[in-house]
Amino acid sequence: MAPVTTAGERMHALVERLYPLCRSITGDGVRATLDIVGEYVPLQVHEVPTGTRVLDWTVPQEWNIRDAYIADTTGRRVVDFAASSLHVLGYSVPVAATMPLSELRGHLHTLPDQPTWVPYRTSYYTPEWGFCLAQETLDAMPDGEYEVRIDSTLADGHLTYAEHVVPGQVAEEVIVSCHVCHPSLANDNLAGVAVAVLLAQELAQRSPYYTYRFIFAPGTIGAITWLARNAERVELVRHGLVLACAGDRGQLTYKQSRRGDAEIDRVLEHVLRTSERPHRVTEFTPYGYDERQYCSPGFDLGVGSLTRTPYAGYPEYHTSADNPDFVSPEAMADTLAVCREAFAVLDRNRQYLNLSPYGEPQLGRRGLYDSLGGRSDAKQAQLAMLWVLNLSDGEHSLLDVAERSGLPFDTVAAAADALHGAGLIKA
Amino acid sequence: MAPVTTAGERMHALVERLYPLCRSITGDGVRATLDIVGEYVPLQVHEVPTGTRVLDWTVPQEWNIRDAYIADTTGRRVVDFAASSLHVLGYSVPVAATMPLSELRGHLHTLPDQPTWVPYRTSYYTPEWGFCLAQETLDAMPDGEYEVRIDSTLADGHLTYAEHVVPGQVAEEVIVSCHVCHPSLANDNLAGVAVAVLLAQELAQRSPYYTYRFIFAPGTIGAITWLARNAERVELVRHGLVLACAGDRGQLTYKQSRRGDAEIDRVLEHVLRTSERPHRVTEFTPYGYDERQYCSPGFDLGVGSLTRTPYAGYPEYHTSADNPDFVSPEAMADTLAVCREAFAVLDRNRQYLNLSPYGEPQLGRRGLYDSLGGRSDAKQAQLAMLWVLNLSDGEHSLLDVAERSGLPFDTVAAAADALHGAGLIKA
Amino acid sequence: MAPVTTAGERMHALVERLYPLCRSITGDGVRATLDIVGEYVPLQVHEVPTGTRVLDWTVPQEWNIRDAYIADTTGRRVVDFAASSLHVLGYSVPVAATMPLSELRGHLHTLPDQPTWVPYRTSYYTPEWGFCLAQETLDAMPDGEYEVRIDSTLADGHLTYAEHVVPGQVAEEVIVSCHVCHPSLANDNLAGVAVAVLLAQELAQRSPYYTYRFIFAPGTIGAITWLARNAERVELVRHGLVLACAGDRGQLTYKQSRRGDAEIDRVLEHVLRTSERPHRVTEFTPYGYDERQYCSPGFDLGVGSLTRTPYAGYPEYHTSADNPDFVSPEAMADTLAVCREAFAVLDRNRQYLNLSPYGEPQLGRRGLYDSLGGRSDAKQAQLAMLWVLNLSDGEHSLLDVAERSGLPFDTVAAAADALHGAGLIKA
Repeated sequence: MAPVTTAGERMHALVERLYPLCRSITGDGVRATLDIVGEYVPLQVHEVPTGTRVLDWTVPQEWNIRDAYIADTTGRRVVDFAASSLHVLGYSVPVAATMPLSELRGHLHTLPDQPTWVPYRTSYYTPEWGFCLAQETLDAMPDGEYEVRIDSTLADGHLTYAEHVVPGQVAEEVIVSCHVCHPSLANDNLAGVAVAVLLAQELAQRSPYYTYRFIFAPGTIGAITWLARNAERVELVRHGLVLACAGDRGQLTYKQSRRGDAEIDRVLEHVLRTSERPHRVTEFTPYGYDERQYCSPGFDLGVGSLTRTPYAGYPEYHTSADNPDFVSPEAMADTLAVCREAFAVLDRNRQYLNLSPYGEPQLGRRGLYDSLGGRSDAKQAQLAMLWVLNLSDGEHSLLDVAERSGLPFDTVAAAADALHGAGLIKA
Repeated sequence: MAPVTTAGERMHALVERLYPLCRSITGDGVRATLDIVGEYVPLQVHEVPTGTRVLDWTVPQEWNIRDAYIADTTGRRVVDFAASSLHVLGYSVPVAATMPLSELRGHLHTLPDQPTWVPYRTSYYTPEWGFCLAQETLDAMPDGEYEVRIDSTLADGHLTYAEHVVPGQVAEEVIVSCHVCHPSLANDNLAGVAVAVLLAQELAQRSPYYTYRFIFAPGTIGAITWLARNAERVELVRHGLVLACAGDRGQLTYKQSRRGDAEIDRVLEHVLRTSERPHRVTEFTPYGYDERQYCSPGFDLGVGSLTRTPYAGYPEYHTSADNPDFVSPEAMADTLAVCREAFAVLDRNRQYLNLSPYGEPQLGRRGLYDSLGGRSDAKQAQLAMLWVLNLSDGEHSLLDVAERSGLPFDTVAAAADALHGAGLIKA
Repeated sequence: MAPVTTAGERMHALVERLYPLCRSITGDGVRATLDIVGEYVPLQVHEVPTGTRVLDWTVPQEWNIRDAYIADTTGRRVVDFAASSLHVLGYSVPVAATMPLSELRGHLHTLPDQPTWVPYRTSYYTPEWGFCLAQETLDAMPDGEYEVRIDSTLADGHLTYAEHVVPGQVAEEVIVSCHVCHPSLANDNLAGVAVAVLLAQELAQRSPYYTYRFIFAPGTIGAITWLARNAERVELVRHGLVLACAGDRGQLTYKQSRRGDAEIDRVLEHVLRTSERPHRVTEFTPYGYDERQYCSPGFDLGVGSLTRTPYAGYPEYHTSADNPDFVSPEAMADTLAVCREAFAVLDRNRQYLNLSPYGEPQLGRRGLYDSLGGRSDAKQAQLAMLWVLNLSDGEHSLLDVAERSGLPFDTVAAAADALHGAGLIKA
């Protein structure tokens, strides 16, 4: 096997490794997933007991599954959990019975329009059992008796989630959140997990301004559990990003926070636009991933969501066709690059105050301006300094300057550094 | 005669019945009109004495007219008030004289560009007499002597207007205002009166949230009189609509209140847009109908105006061609339908407060959410609940939710009802 | 010579007269320029000593020059200051030397892409000497020894600027600012000076509402000096305009003040738009002319900039091709006309308060409204009165009324005069 060399390839390898595990909102599949993620970045794993009240919800019983199948009268397994974790309805109660197909049908889920694909279905909060299978599998099942068996356990236990923190220069935090509750689905959300892992590794290489907190938690109940247990920490969260569907070949989609004009919104839109990537920006909607919770009106955090093709926007969504082939190293590398660029802007974006606001300060005697006058081709670095000076009035950030001036953010930030070094502006 | 069955036909019949009466800003023509309207909906009729100060104005003398004509030397009436109330200049002082055509011409009003139409003209506040006639009638009048006679009375009396109230659950009011001062003109404003009458009948069939007050008053001086005599009631007026030109075959036009973003503006625009009717929305202008008074800067009420072709926007405007044939049952029924739909939205539009604003409340255990997870085709009713929960922060109304989400207002309102029933939101 | 008859011709004659003088940020060239301007409008000339601290800057030594040339070994002057003031680098220190071309080259400035044009270059704050010449002149210079001589003086002296004030009815001021530091360049900025001069003459013919202050000062350091010495007066500045590049044949460009919505911005945009001149409006940028100083964040004055082709926007910019032929009498007359129209609007723009805000006041009994009712062609004067009454709520100016109504500003202002005369509104 060739050595894994690129970031895209490393992320794809992680997706392939995590893919077979049967994750759910609780259980050993989540733990196994976090064990593997923990090989890449150190994790603090939290176990929250069944019955714990978390906001309006209660941590449910823990679900574990060992085996499940439908066998015909010959004992042949026509549907087998061992082949794909999708085959069993998530959170199925145990069953061991023999019944005619006519009775079994009420427990079978298929996609008639996509007869070769297996759907992903769950029943977390209503006791139920069931199987998911390809329509063509069902069509091939003759009437008659079938043995059905789900060797699962629903019992008091724990909900498991994990955090990884990259310490920053300040206590204010940026959260990056991924759901880890989906079983064998690659884009949704192993690709998001993989991008988050490499992003965390990269951030640790530099000393970021903000403290970056990566949250790997089951969807909905996991985010709600984190929010319930971190009431004080939430006060420190300044920005955040939910990563999901990070690996398909579609164009990037940034979904705004509920606020619509949070700094994270402006940063992502700036980076996507100025990088000239094809992309879409969509308004907040109260469905999708865990931005639903972070952006509930009581929290209303500045948390957006970055995906490629968004939630439910592709036929393979929540089916067996969302497999490792559906995600590409290049797409994940591109998603990672946008996160990297966006956090680089976010980390350097500040409001400065011009300490010499009456007229322009004389840049020339400070070595910041060309001595030769009259030329029409002023240098971008000089224009950037004039812009920073003019807009550093306590109401504009460097991102505002970049957007207003049309200059690259890096040029503007460098100009601010030069002016700050000369004592002309203060943070 | 076939039985009158549809709302449109009933309205058209009312227009035809009211058409011959000679209305003005005062006088028995207004009283006769209100008598007929009173057969449909009970009216409280007000008589305000001549000389009463109303805001910056004074109620003028009452004008009544019995006969008027121009007769040639043979005694033949070449212009006859009995044929059309338009023939006499509104508020003409009495005259009985014989004069040559050359002298008479100064008192004659025609439309040279529409030689077969009789114009509508008035001189309410400057003593004057005159006749309105078709240009072709004038052209056929030979030089010579004519007998002119206007048997009118200008004397102390009263200004007459009427109100009809549909009581609501709250004291806050919606006013619907129509001018009743125009003589034999069908679209302007008998069609508006007819739509208002049927709207009042319909509202009485349900128990509306707001109290709806219908005002039938002469234009300008009538609205000013109502405003002058209802200083305290004006404080209760939350919304309002001036109805005029409600029956021509043109598309609907909503003219915004002076505020431009009053709730009535947003409701009418929402209903017109989502119903996919061809329509126009125009900004407020300080001319047109009695929105001029309701939207004067001292009152600045949230009162818009609904017409089909607007004020002065059609050739037949203020001429004898604005006759019952010019208005159609279908157009009046359509105007009525928009009013009905708009008031249904207005009546249900509320701001709610999410009582569980931290994270999403668990809708599933309250029976408000599907137990089967994983499907991509979330139901509109569920999406609507998520939207209502997310935006019920004390700053958004259900109309805001409908507009932001793109969901039908009815779906949003039903979701709010369900959430309210579950104790998750409060009004 | 034919008599100078039009404003455009008078301005062009002034440009031609000022053109040969060698202006800089200090020195006798500025004084000679102001002497000539003073023949047209009385000036108050200020002399500010070298070393004076002005905001973040210090008034530099005064520069004067008598002669400068490069001569070949035969004594022939191949580059001669007497031929054009552009030939010497502005603020060149004195030099008298003989050197080979190879050494001289480091002091020569050309425009390789425009080989027949001489560039304009300066080195105000770094001691340097140099010559500007056409590339073709340089190409024709054989290697060998050259005599170089700059007979200049850099010594303690003064910075010179001037003001001309047209007294108004109120102490609040409008400033009109032109830079007078550029040597033989016609569009930049002798055309601006010429337009300012005629504008000042015209304003003196009427009694303007605002006090108009014309500032003729060297660029950057001159404006900074004026601001430093007029801290209290700045408090009185309500509006302002920087005039530059006022004579080229390109379309007009209005550059907004930093605020972007200052009254001067709205006035200029209104006049340019309603006059249907081809024009551009651009957002504020912190480079260009002395709007940089007036709009620095500490002052943030409502000062825009009017040019034809803007700063650095034409190939002839800062070259010998910006000569009197480059500017036209017609273009300068057009710039003057826009200033005249804009200041006429600015001077009459007020907020009024409707003293009869409840309902419409009865205009008819005050002789302000037609007595004949029913016509659809209401007169603009009457519509304007209704608009002024409706919007005179303490939040809208006459310009707001003109823009909202679409009526000409003059009609609106006349309506306000009539209503004011009738005691219906107050300023």
